[in-house]
Order: sequence, then structure tokens, then C-alpha cells
Amino acid sequence: MNIDLRSDTVTKPTEAMLRAMAEAEVGDDVYREDPTVNRLEEIAAERLGKEAALFVTSGTQGNQIAVLTHCVNGDEVILEAESHLFYYEGGAMSALAGVQTRTIHGERGSMRAKDVEKAIRGNNIHFPRTKLICLENTHNRAGGAVGTVEQMKSIYEVAQKNSVPVHLDGARLFNAAIALGVDVGELCKYTDTVQICLSKGLSAPVGSIIAGDRDFIEEARWWRKKLGGGLRQAGYLAAPGILALTQMTERLVEDHERAKQLSDGLRKLSLKVDTVETNIVLLHTESIHQTAVDFLERLAERGVLAVDFDDYVIRFTTHRHISESDIARVLEIVEELLGAATASH
Amino acid sequence: MNIDLRSDTVTKPTEAMLRAMAEAEVGDDVYREDPTVNRLEEIAAERLGKEAALFVTSGTQGNQIAVLTHCVNGDEVILEAESHLFYYEGGAMSALAGVQTRTIHGERGSMRAKDVEKAIRGNNIHFPRTKLICLENTHNRAGGAVGTVEQMKSIYEVAQKNSVPVHLDGARLFNAAIALGVDVGELCKYTDTVQICLSKGLSAPVGSIIAGDRDFIEEARWWRKKLGGGLRQAGYLAAPGILALTQMTERLVEDHERAKQLSDGLRKLSLKVDTVETNIVLLHTESIHQTAVDFLERLAERGVLAVDFDDYVIRFTTHRHISESDIARVLEIVEELLGAATASH
Amino acid sequence: MNIDLRSDTVTKPTEAMLRAMAEAEVGDDVYREDPTVNRLEEIAAERLGKEAALFVTSGTQGNQIAVLTHCVNGDEVILEAESHLFYYEGGAMSALAGVQTRTIHGERGSMRAKDVEKAIRGNNIHFPRTKLICLENTHNRAGGAVGTVEQMKSIYEVAQKNSVPVHLDGARLFNAAIALGVDVGELCKYTDTVQICLSKGLSAPVGSIIAGDRDFIEEARWWRKKLGGGLRQAGYLAAPGILALTQMTERLVEDHERAKQLSDGLRKLSLKVDTVETNIVLLHTESIHQTAVDFLERLAERGVLAVDFDDYVIRFTTHRHISESDIARVLEIVEELLGAATASH
Amino acid sequence: MNIDLRSDTVTKPTEAMLRAMAEAEVGDDVYREDPTVNRLEEIAAERLGKEAALFVTSGTQGNQIAVLTHCVNGDEVILEAESHLFYYEGGAMSALAGVQTRTIHGERGSMRAKDVEKAIRGNNIHFPRTKLICLENTHNRAGGAVGTVEQMKSIYEVAQKNSVPVHLDGARLFNAAIALGVDVGELCKYTDTVQICLSKGLSAPVGSIIAGDRDFIEEARWWRKKLGGGLRQAGYLAAPGILALTQMTERLVEDHERAKQLSDGLRKLSLKVDTVETNIVLLHTESIHQTAVDFLERLAERGVLAVDFDDYVIRFTTHRHISESDIARVLEIVEELLGAATASH
Repeated sequence: MNIDLRSDTVTKPTEAMLRAMAEAEVGDDVYREDPTVNRLEEIAAERLGKEAALFVTSGTQGNQIAVLTHCVNGDEVILEAESHLFYYEGGAMSALAGVQTRTIHGERGSMRAKDVEKAIRGNNIHFPRTKLICLENTHNRAGGAVGTVEQMKSIYEVAQKNSVPVHLDGARLFNAAIALGVDVGELCKYTDTVQICLSKGLSAPVGSIIAGDRDFIEEARWWRKKLGGGLRQAGYLAAPGILALTQMTERLVEDHERAKQLSDGLRKLSLKVDTVETNIVLLHTESIHQTAVDFLERLAERGVLAVDFDDYVIRFTTHRHISESDIARVLEIVEELLGAATASH
Repeated sequence: MNIDLRSDTVTKPTEAMLRAMAEAEVGDDVYREDPTVNRLEEIAAERLGKEAALFVTSGTQGNQIAVLTHCVNGDEVILEAESHLFYYEGGAMSALAGVQTRTIHGERGSMRAKDVEKAIRGNNIHFPRTKLICLENTHNRAGGAVGTVEQMKSIYEVAQKNSVPVHLDGARLFNAAIALGVDVGELCKYTDTVQICLSKGLSAPVGSIIAGDRDFIEEARWWRKKLGGGLRQAGYLAAPGILALTQMTERLVEDHERAKQLSDGLRKLSLKVDTVETNIVLLHTESIHQTAVDFLERLAERGVLAVDFDDYVIRFTTHRHISESDIARVLEIVEELLGAATASH
Repeated sequence: MNIDLRSDTVTKPTEAMLRAMAEAEVGDDVYREDPTVNRLEEIAAERLGKEAALFVTSGTQGNQIAVLTHCVNGDEVILEAESHLFYYEGGAMSALAGVQTRTIHGERGSMRAKDVEKAIRGNNIHFPRTKLICLENTHNRAGGAVGTVEQMKSIYEVAQKNSVPVHLDGARLFNAAIALGVDVGELCKYTDTVQICLSKGLSAPVGSIIAGDRDFIEEARWWRKKLGGGLRQAGYLAAPGILALTQMTERLVEDHERAKQLSDGLRKLSLKVDTVETNIVLLHTESIHQTAVDFLERLAERGVLAVDFDDYVIRFTTHRHISESDIARVLEIVEELLGAATASH
Repeated sequence: MNIDLRSDTVTKPTEAMLRAMAEAEVGDDVYREDPTVNRLEEIAAERLGKEAALFVTSGTQGNQIAVLTHCVNGDEVILEAESHLFYYEGGAMSALAGVQTRTIHGERGSMRAKDVEKAIRGNNIHFPRTKLICLENTHNRAGGAVGTVEQMKSIYEVAQKNSVPVHLDGARLFNAAIALGVDVGELCKYTDTVQICLSKGLSAPVGSIIAGDRDFIEEARWWRKKLGGGLRQAGYLAAPGILALTQMTERLVEDHERAKQLSDGLRKLSLKVDTVETNIVLLHTESIHQTAVDFLERLAERGVLAVDFDDYVIRFTTHRHISESDIARVLEIVEELLGAATASH
């Protein structure tokens, strides 16, 4: 069987989650009568320190609904140049919401507050209006890099001063909180709205949450309906989601340890690896004269799966199904491949 | 406990569905590795007589993806003036796809082919281009009215002649097939793409299917992703969906019988009821000098739930949880309410 | 030389207009420094009884800017089923503004207030929000039909009651005012914003005006810029526009007389013609067993130009370049064609 | 009277242009019957080396129509981070066309071909599709910087290899051609479509041209109509436009000389000025401890007008109404202001 390090999205629900699903009390959530969904939304709002929350089917859907709710067509959104919202959501925010993306290159995924401030548009008929600033924490393409409370606060202050709301793509926000040793609510203080994923490291099969103030969430429901995200007996998905939020967040520390084990091992093999803060490891393959795609192919032949992030960058993601011995095995295989590569010269 | 005739969307899964959910073999469907989703899509494509199918989270999502895939911004779509796509989807097709809606008033929900033909735009710089014709069968706001094979065929011929594709909103297409005594594939012959719901009368908790040719479905996947409808371990929803398609379609005949029982009973009470062909009953309240909302309130006090469809029109929808005796009880309650109304004069 | 009854848009400027153009004092209107444009906008605002006005390059641009300014993506607009905004503007309001069109069939172009009221959406998550009602007066496809002050008022009252603004497509509003014998400002009382054309019967070469309250016009400037309607030395177009507004409106009575002359003559030839109120004549060709396109071809061979409005409907439009003897000549030619048609039987 | 260096858009038409306007033969351009417009479009197409051309009312409109014609909603466009299309067009391309902007930081306005190549998206369901690359030459915010034929060619080769069309915002393309000493057609070889302005240095009062192959221009007409850019007797604007193209391009050399004179003079005053290649001078005010806005205010008090381009950057633009002695006067005033500033220490 493969050691699947492609993404933490491949995690399957726990036994407890499967039981919760089977026993879930459900209703029609479009009528807001699904008690399990309602409970999940309450728990999530409280956990994130917001007035209200909404269950959505994916992180992309949560992010897009946030943009659609904060902005109207013709507005501009500031976000990091390699953020998921810009990079991996199919251009949806421009396609669906008609907003222009204003990208800023961050330092390990974090934009500097002064760059954000400079990008906020003045009152000029030639300009769109800046209506939203989007953050991502942890930042996927920056290798699971963590934005600190201070970084988030400095941007939030700029945003407040300029009356521009902030949305946080927190698909892996619990990884950030664990890494920083702070409560997730502490990070959410510095954003108006937030999206978190219940799947990924938290292992629920499907679903995300967006949270914010009551008016925002009320309006977000309208946009969720337009995107076809209004579900019927959604309680079957909400039930494992509740366990994800209440029982699974602390376990992320294990994923971080596995990532550390992997990056330490790769470095011992003289490979170039980015700083690892959470559950993502970025390996640079230039020094071994192989493209990411080529090296991935050779790994896959030996049962190790990962993904390419750039021509010479491979991403490994640790998660609940990856054990200490899996990582040891991955390192053995990499060593073999490097040896073979050397031998073949 | 209430007798809930608001919608067939309130149906809960069967015991077999719950078991299937618990035992489902799953994977990450964004990587197309969820075997249960893949199986559902194969079964659905075959059942509908199309090359390929795609699981989506709701009928609205399926319809919107169809519009987004068939059209580009600036196009025009012909559809019935009270169709779900126009009436109940939040204006999403114009908001998301940038298409103009050209509505035609149908006869019991079915547009006449010659009206459709007349509405197809010629080649003139002042006009949008007609890029899609949408049908709905059974037609919700027309009281579950059925479009016949001949009606569908006549529009399809016009569409083909003018090189305009047809999309069928078949949220309750199995109800139409049962009422007509034909296979659902026979109806799908006269449409390029189709959306069917697995919930509603078929009782799956969540989900719909869109089907069409392989290229269409491939492109539809991209739009599903943008709408946030790309799920991870979606097999937990697909498993009951498979049972919905393979074991639940024949049972719709019972819902139709219940609707017939209700309409017959209401007519015996001298009430005006539209022709009933499937599982929906439209009651007109003008003759009893009460608005729909007022009469619904009085029904609700006695534990009977339904919805208003117009100022003086109430919709009752039968489904798996409505028994013969439930309908008998509803009729008793209506009779009491009418008596009370008369007595109070 | 042809007798061109295709449209009043073919009118050329008067000598006085050409002189005004040559002598216009101009500046950069994007900086709002074109004194002639500024004067036109002041004159127009006053004439229409609104706080402010904006010069735009066409009626379509004025209408689209109005929709973009009143609405955001996801809203719905109520308008007549054959209105210019819906029928002849390329689906632009859905393409550019992302709004859904809700059409109502009017009586000679005028919607009934109670139909409009019924079409205004309630507060329901399945619905778009109704954010605008559009009127057209005179109504082009209804054959230059005039909406009365009372008709406009009755819709405006419904709109006010429901807090929905009204926009009036008054491309030929002066024709309506002349026909009704009222001041154009009287009609504008019953609309929040209005668009009027300076070309057409008023004979300026290019341009339209939108008017409304100051905030609306300020915002409209932003949308005009996005559409590329922010011009530089626009005074050369504004100068004849000023004459159009101040010297040309009374002359429209002549166009109406010519249209009357034409329709009377056609009726004497036993042809079916719609009621003529202004400068448009709709001729029905079914009784002479010829399609509009066929009959137009035969007219064109004899130097008479008009346009087809439907399979069996031809539109003739009178304007400043059409004299009494032109109409007499047209009638002779039609008579000849009819004779030829009879003879050939 | 002020010395107005704010923009070359403030230029007024020549006497010859005014005469051409007065004598223009016109017609209804929506019917394509304006002979002067038709002639302008032919001349422009030939001059730019393209099959066909279209008159539009502004550079913004031309650029937006190009984007709308090349792309559909959901696509992505690569363009320079400070290009006019991204920076100064109100976010219109996302608002109107629903496309996402992918910005690259250029070197003096020119993107490197390898950066463009890297930004072209692969075939991945998470990505938008790259459907257009936009260039700008000369580049306004880069201070009128010129892109060389080689730079354009290198990007065009990347574009061709990846089947992505190129659009050139050539609002000041003739300035680039003059600076490079090449024919404008030589630059247009390396772009599929191009927009040029007839106003600015060429001095026509209003209007731009887009050019490309016949199919593109045919489709562009449809989008121009939707934006309200379909004019009636547009010949009055086209007539000076013809002179702009045929008699005014060589005179741009004078504007470049004036800009050189200004930058040389400013440097002699020890001020920091960017390299000047055409008719734009960017002055940095940090060294004199004044913000751009403050220094502009003091210049304006003395009758010199320019615009701020950044907190500490002022743009001066030379044009037909700026003489050698005007520049000398500007330099005197700047010297005085600097002296005053020094004296006040």
C-alpha cells in the first residue's frame, strides 16, 4: 500500500465519526431544521470567537461566499500572490463576484502591513474600490508557513484604519494555532470573517465553516444558496464535523512531528528543504538535477505519493494516516533513489 | 407530530441507506479516487442514457453548472417563466454566468415549441446569442405537471434545427417517468443535459446528478470546483444516492396515489384544486376567502404543514413519510377548518 | 436618393449644430473641465427636473450605467418584455451587471402597476432581490406608444411603497411629452432616473443624457469610466446636444404628423397598421401574404427603406429628413406594389 | 495661463482637424454607413498592419472590448502590475468580463518573457485558463518607458508557443515607434490585437482604435454595442482621427524633446528624475522632503500643473501645447521653489 503524502485531504473519518454519522439526528437544513448542523454552527462560532457560523461544502466554497458577501462587482480584493484564493480556486472570485485581484508577494506567505496599506486604493474614478483583504494561515504554497498573531494584528490595524474588512482563509488555521501555542480564537480576533476546514488534518469527510458577525452570515446564506451549497439532511456531514472541531484539533501536533521527522531526514541526505512549521514539507529538487515531476514518478514507483508545487519543488503533507515508520520508510526510499542517481553517473 | 407536506425534500434516508453510508468505501473525490462516487456516476449516466455524469450537492448547483458550462457571459437562455431555474435560484444564472433570462409562459409548465422557436435570437448586433433552452419536468410551480415525450421532442427538434442545446431540470424527473409510464431514458433522449435529484422522493439525504456527453461533464467539473462543489470523501453521500437510483424510483407511485387521495378529498369539500399528475397538489384558497398564508397558519396550528405558492395558492407535496391515514387526517382537519369558517359567518 | 424610414437615428445635425460644434469651447471632460459638457449637463438636469445629469455616448450606455449604478450582481430588474433594455441591448445588463431580467408583458408597452407589484420579490433566500423597475416611453417595439402620466405615476407609487427605484428609458421621451402635451419634467417626476437621447428626432450626431439625484450621477461617473465612456474633449458632441435640447424638441410634432399621414394612407390602402401616437408606424404584412423581409426588399428596390420588427411587421420611423412629399411618394410606391401583387395572382 | 503638464489628453484639435470635423461626410455608424468612420478604420488597419480596425470612444473602452472579445468569464489574463489596464481602468476587466488578473512586475514596464511563461497556467482543475497576455507600450506608470521590438517579440514567441493571444495597450504606441525609430507596424507584428489612442499626443478630441484580424473585430463590434460604444454620426470624431493618424505622428518627436529638456533641467537642479525615453518625466520628491501632493500644490500656485503618481513621485507629460519656453519657465519656477525651501531651513 502507498504512503500517501499528497495532501491531508485524503484523511478518512475516525470510527467515532462514522458512528456519529450513523446516529445523527437530521432535518432539512434549507429550512434550518437540521439540529446537528445547527449545533455544529454554534460550536464553531463559539470556538472561533464569532457571532455566527455557516456550514459549507468546501474551503473554496467558504472563501468564495466570503468574497461574494463582502464585495460587489467592480471592487478590488488584496491578497497574497500565491494564496489559495488566488492560485487554486479557478479564478472564481473574478468569475463569480466580478472583483479584481490585487496580489502582493508575501514573506513566507505573510504580506507586510505596509505593503497592504499601500495597495489600498484612494478615491479616484480610475480605481476600483478596495473592499476586502484576504489572509491565509497556515499558508499552503509557502509550505505551511505560520502567520503570527503580531503579523495578523498589524494588517488588521491597517484594515480597520481604512475601513476595509479582513477575511482569513484558515483552511489549516488549527495547524497555525497549534504551532504558535495560542488559541484559535486569538488569531480570529484579527479578522472579520474566517473559513476553516473540517476535513484535512481534522479528518471529517466533507465540509468547512465560515464565521463572522450575524449579518454577514445571514447574507452569506443567500450566496451559499446561489452556489448550490444549500443542502438538505446535511447533519450526516455535520456530525463528524462536530467531532473534528471538538476532538481532533490537538492531534495535529503529531502531524507536525512527522513533518519535522521528514524534513530532518531529508536534510541529513543533503537535500534542500524549506523551514517546516506545521504539516507541510517543501523539497527542492534542483540540486539533484531532477524535475519535481520526474522525482515524483520515481517515488510513486516505490509507493510514495506527493505532489509537485513548482518545476523543482515537491510538497509532502503529513496527516493522521502517516506514522513514524511511514516517514522512516519514505526516507529510506529517497536515500535509495539518490544512491541510484549517483551510481548512474 | 406534524404531518409535513411542505416538500419532499424533508425525506430522511432509509435504513438501507444509512447502512450503505456507514459501510461506504471512500477516497478523495477531487482526485477522482472515491470509488463510491465513481460508481454512482456510472450508474446514473447509464440510467439516464448519457455518456457521463457528475455528482453535485444540490439541484440548484447542478442547474447552475449546466448553465455555466453551456454558456458564456453575454448569452441568453430561454426558459419557462415560472421554472425553478428562473424563479427559485436567486437570479444565480445572471449573477454567476452573466446570461440573460428570456422567459416564456408555458401551459402547465410546458412551453410550446413554436414559442421557443420564436424566442431564439437571430444574428443581429443588438441581440444576445441564444445558447441554451431549459426545460423542467415535472414542473414544480405548475403543480408537478408532467411534460410528455412528445412535448419534449417538439422542443428538442426546434433546438437541434437552430443548434441550441437543451438542458432539463429533472429534479423530479422520475416522477414524470412514473406518471407517463416510460423509462426515464426515453425522456432524456430529448435533452442534451439533465439534472436529477437524489433527495426529494428518492430519499437520499443530499445530492443531485448532472449528465451529458463526456466533454460537457469534463468541463462541468471545472465549474463545480469554482462553485466549491468539489468534495473530498463524498462517497458517504454517494452511497445512499446509489440506492436512491436503483431501489427507490418505483416507490414514487405511492406518493402519486397519496396526492390523488388528497386532491380527491379536497374537491369533495368543494375546494378548487389543480389537476394532479404526480406528488404535488395546488389548492386555491380564494373561494374560501382566506389568503394562503392565513390558511397555512390555521393548518399549522393543527399540525399540518404546507407552503404558499402565491397569494391564494397552497402547495402540498406528498412523499415517503406520508401515509394514507396522514392524508385522511389532513382532510379531516381541512373539513373542520372549513366548518369553523362557515360557522363563524 | 432613398427615402430612409429605418430610424430617426439617421438624422444629421442642423447647420446651427455644425456651427456650434466648430465653435465649441472644450476641455478634458475626464477632469470635468469641458465647459460645454458641463453646460449641457446643467441644462439637461434642469430640463428633466433632476439634481444632476451626465453625458454618455448612447442610449444603451445610459441605460446600462443606470442598471450598474442602481443594482449589484445577484439583483433582479423588472422591465417590459419587449423593452429596448431587454430586447435590443445584447443582454448587456446580465452580462455586465450580473442582474436577472424579470419581464412583464405590457399593453402597448406599458406594464400594469399591479403586474409590477406582483413581480417584486419577497424576502426569501430562494429569490434575487428586486432592485430596479425600468420603463420605456415612448415604447419602440410597441410602435412609439406613449405611456401616460397616470400610468407612470401608478407604477411609481408601487415602486416607492416597495422601496424599489425606477429608471426610465426615455430615448424618445420628448416624443411622448409632445404627444401628451405635457412638459417632459412632468413625466420625470415619476421616475428616479431617466435616460434621454440627443440624437434621433432631436438630431444631434451622438449622445444621450442620464439624470437623477447627485449621488446617483456621481456614482454613474465611475461606471461610465469602466465602460470606456469617459471622453476627453467631448464638448464637440455636447455643443450640438445643447441645441438638441433647447431648440429641437418642439419640431417633433412634424415627425408625428408625417407618421399620421403615413398610417392614414396605408389604412386607405386597406393595410393593417397599429395605432400611431408619435413618429413610428407599424405595418402588418400578413394580409398581403408577404413576410416583412420580402416586402422590405421590394420597397428597397424602389428606394424606400424601413426595418422588420417581426416576421410580418415592418417599422417605419419618421424624422427631420422626411417631408410630406416623401410620405406621399412612399404611399404611391406601396400602392404600386400592392397592385402588382394583385395583378400577379 | 497655466502650463498644463498633467497629461497629453488635454490637447485640443488642430485647425485642420476642426475643419475636417465641420466638413465630414457622415452616416449612421451602427448601420456601418458612416463613410468617414469606415475610412478611418481602413487607414488604421493598414497603418497597424492588421486586417481590420474599429473606432471606439476611449483607450479604456478599446482595452476592455479586447479583453471581452478574447476571454470568457473564468479565464485569467497576464499583465504588468502597474499597467493601465490593471491600475487605472476601475477593475473593469474583472467587473465586466469576469476574468482574473495575474500581475507580473516588469522592468521599466516590460515583463520578462520567462516570467510570462511561468505565469501561464497548466491544465489543472484548480486553475483558471490563461487566455490573454496584455502589454503596454509606452508604459505610462513606468514613466513613458519603451518596450523594444526584441522584448515584444520574446513575449510573443512564448505566447504563440502556448496558444495564448497577446493584446497591446498602445495608447502611446506612436511615441514608442518614434523613440525606437521603427514603424509602428513593426511593433504590431508581435501582438494579435492592439489599441491606440487618437487623442493624447496625436491631438484628436476623442477616440481610440482597436485592430486585429477580421473575426476579432467583427466580434468586438458586438461587445462595443453592449458597452454603449456604438455611435450614430461618429464621422465628426473620425475626421480628426484620420488627421491624427496621417499627419500628427511625426510631431511626437517634439514632445520627446520637451521632456528631455525638462528632465535635463531638473537633474541640473540636483533632483532625482527617472530615465526619459518619450514624453513623460517622473520626478522623485523624497530628496526635497516634500510629498508629491505638497510640491504639486506649490507648483499649481505658480501656474504649473502636473499629477502625483505615488506618495513621492510626480508625473509631467509634454504635448503639443507645451513649448520650449514653457519648459524653461517650469524649470525657473522649480528652482525658485527649491531656493525658497532651502532658504526656509
